[in-house]
Amino acid sequence: MIFIVAEILNVGTEILLGNITNSNAAFLSQQLAGIGVSVFRHTSVGDNHKRLKCAIEHAFENADVVITTGGLGPTQDDITKSVAAEFFGLKLEMHEESRQRILERFAGRELPESVERNALVPQGAKVFPNENGSAPGICIESGGKILIMLPGPPHELQPLFLNYAAAFLREKTEGVFVSRTLKIIGIGETAVESQLRDLIDAQTNPTIAPYAKVGEVHIRITASAADETAAHTLLSPVADEIYRRLNPRIYGENEVSLAEVVLELLKTQNHTLAVAESCTGGLVSSDLISVPGSSVVFREGFVTYSNEAKTARLFVPESLLAAHGAVSAEVAAAMAEGAAKAANATVAISITGIAGPDGGTQEKPVGLVYVGLFVAGRGMLTEKFNFTGNRNEIRRRSAISALDLLRKKIDMDIG
Amino acid sequence: MIFIVAEILNVGTEILLGNITNSNAAFLSQQLAGIGVSVFRHTSVGDNHKRLKCAIEHAFENADVVITTGGLGPTQDDITKSVAAEFFGLKLEMHEESRQRILERFAGRELPESVERNALVPQGAKVFPNENGSAPGICIESGGKILIMLPGPPHELQPLFLNYAAAFLREKTEGVFVSRTLKIIGIGETAVESQLRDLIDAQTNPTIAPYAKVGEVHIRITASAADETAAHTLLSPVADEIYRRLNPRIYGENEVSLAEVVLELLKTQNHTLAVAESCTGGLVSSDLISVPGSSVVFREGFVTYSNEAKTARLFVPESLLAAHGAVSAEVAAAMAEGAAKAANATVAISITGIAGPDGGTQEKPVGLVYVGLFVAGRGMLTEKFNFTGNRNEIRRRSAISALDLLRKKIDMDIG
Repeated sequence: MIFIVAEILNVGTEILLGNITNSNAAFLSQQLAGIGVSVFRHTSVGDNHKRLKCAIEHAFENADVVITTGGLGPTQDDITKSVAAEFFGLKLEMHEESRQRILERFAGRELPESVERNALVPQGAKVFPNENGSAPGICIESGGKILIMLPGPPHELQPLFLNYAAAFLREKTEGVFVSRTLKIIGIGETAVESQLRDLIDAQTNPTIAPYAKVGEVHIRITASAADETAAHTLLSPVADEIYRRLNPRIYGENEVSLAEVVLELLKTQNHTLAVAESCTGGLVSSDLISVPGSSVVFREGFVTYSNEAKTARLFVPESLLAAHGAVSAEVAAAMAEGAAKAANATVAISITGIAGPDGGTQEKPVGLVYVGLFVAGRGMLTEKFNFTGNRNEIRRRSAISALDLLRKKIDMDIG
Repeated sequence: MIFIVAEILNVGTEILLGNITNSNAAFLSQQLAGIGVSVFRHTSVGDNHKRLKCAIEHAFENADVVITTGGLGPTQDDITKSVAAEFFGLKLEMHEESRQRILERFAGRELPESVERNALVPQGAKVFPNENGSAPGICIESGGKILIMLPGPPHELQPLFLNYAAAFLREKTEGVFVSRTLKIIGIGETAVESQLRDLIDAQTNPTIAPYAKVGEVHIRITASAADETAAHTLLSPVADEIYRRLNPRIYGENEVSLAEVVLELLKTQNHTLAVAESCTGGLVSSDLISVPGSSVVFREGFVTYSNEAKTARLFVPESLLAAHGAVSAEVAAAMAEGAAKAANATVAISITGIAGPDGGTQEKPVGLVYVGLFVAGRGMLTEKFNFTGNRNEIRRRSAISALDLLRKKIDMDIG
């Protein structure tokens, strides 16, 4: 196998000012790992000629490939192309096809004076046409060095990488990296690590790496091999062993979201869903509706933050609220049952809790959350949590826990 | 004024694999700009002794201050402290106060064997106590160089920076940078730039920089001066001129969110609010409830994705749905009016639209969204949008537009 080493070089003063979070570096790193390119450094510099040139020189001391992001626009701040041309001793020249493409993009609109500068390209460079903006991607290959320049906006950069740069780089490598990410809820990173300690300590190929997210832990298993089939053959036994140890806490793999898993589960069983939310305030409904096609399953959401709404919409008796308080297992149960009834759904989940920062008491502290699950013909279940974190972390953890309760318990006899 | 130059050095193989997005670099950059520290580079390297040492050496070629993030944990992957100690020629020694703090954190729980390693600190270093984790922040000042090491998890890093590192650095600088960020909705970045072109071209101090966000544009004005008052004196006339040109599209400044502005406006006018959502599916309710204290104003949210729910909950006549379709100005109006009535609120907003990727037609394409505003005793208003972007960008733009319609029109005679 030939491994290629890459550096990602992000160009833009707005990155150094903290005005944008550098999501391009993470996107490119993930993609590069998948095609057998090993990323050894990320560097971000401002729109400064001298510093950018130093950074390119420094990068090629170790890297076979340098991928730049940003600085390809038409203004005088956008210097990536001219610095790169200087580094390779090339002149910039008008790329007629890119110029025509820009003129078409602006057909019928006033063409900003400077915009044709987007079509200037170092002589002899490969050009990756940009369907989503004016600046094309550019690739210079010279003297054993490869420099790929991509525009900064993610919706331009991502298709340019996926449609052009990836294929170009794939031809330069032999072998592949293949990853599987197992997604876990209901157990912390430290506990996951200690359950997998022997596997992690023994890792060579595949490698095993756990990562903590808000309310979740992801375990990424990565194998390198000559081809995808061989990589998957290496991955399978390790993944199987992790499933054996951590099931049923693993809800899915790779890009799948918990909301997608839950919707698919409900759809398969011909269920319909209602959601009753207090402290999460629409977060669970929004997670579900973010999935295309969710309308097949999702009946209705109730954001019943006030006691009045819980009573009016979900038939939660005032006496129950008075006796136990809105944040209680009893009210969580009544909310779920009421939501199913009101929306004429077969399944309902409910969330009631204290997200803070105010409203906590000794008896019911900030972070106390009850979630409820009602399944028609089966019964009712509630679960109690004590979450840590700020208001929105508590809300996020509550939303995840409610969806996960549904995922784990819908098939069980909970009557 | 003495300006300090800093490099941010992120340590962690998970960054280079793209498993996490490096939000720490953006957070630290923003904070450093605010205290007169100029960031000239971000670098991310893996958990590799040699490369980290090279990166520290390379950073101090230009920087007075290097801030590292990550690699402070107790495992053998966590090498930042030992590499830093080696760079400065210092030994690691047990920091008793930090050790006690860790023992207290784990009181009653099993103490992982390695966790005491978190309390090892290069001799003579300043220690910043960590309230949210086991690894303290560490600051080494030696030979005109300052190295600040912070743990990687943002909820540990941020308070350590704000409570300790910022004060330490502020003493080293003279002069301040002060920024105001004006937040704008309803006009694109290009249009903002062209309306402010002369101001942007003439900028020296303060500087003016526009940034595009999903559905919003932010303009950051930054002045450097001897003290805060002097900086604000420089900022005011520029901000005033931008307000003159872009009002009423500027909804707020700095950290304030649109949801906070809307809630404050409603509270001041003693209004109560109901929200009826179709394609946004709880996003607007969730934005509002993410603000502490929102319960004073927020009555109830209705996630009425289906026609049945629109009729049952919001009294939208079936005949209206049949005549105009769910995505129409008429239904948006009926949803808002029905939500106010059902929740007994004085104000209601509604959203109905086609978020895609499916469900679009020639007549009603993906991205078509209607928002409605009802104000008791005043009347009803709807607005039509054609948004671009993927499903969740369309949902986000829809949510913002509904809140912004309320912000702009609640005071007007819309009857």
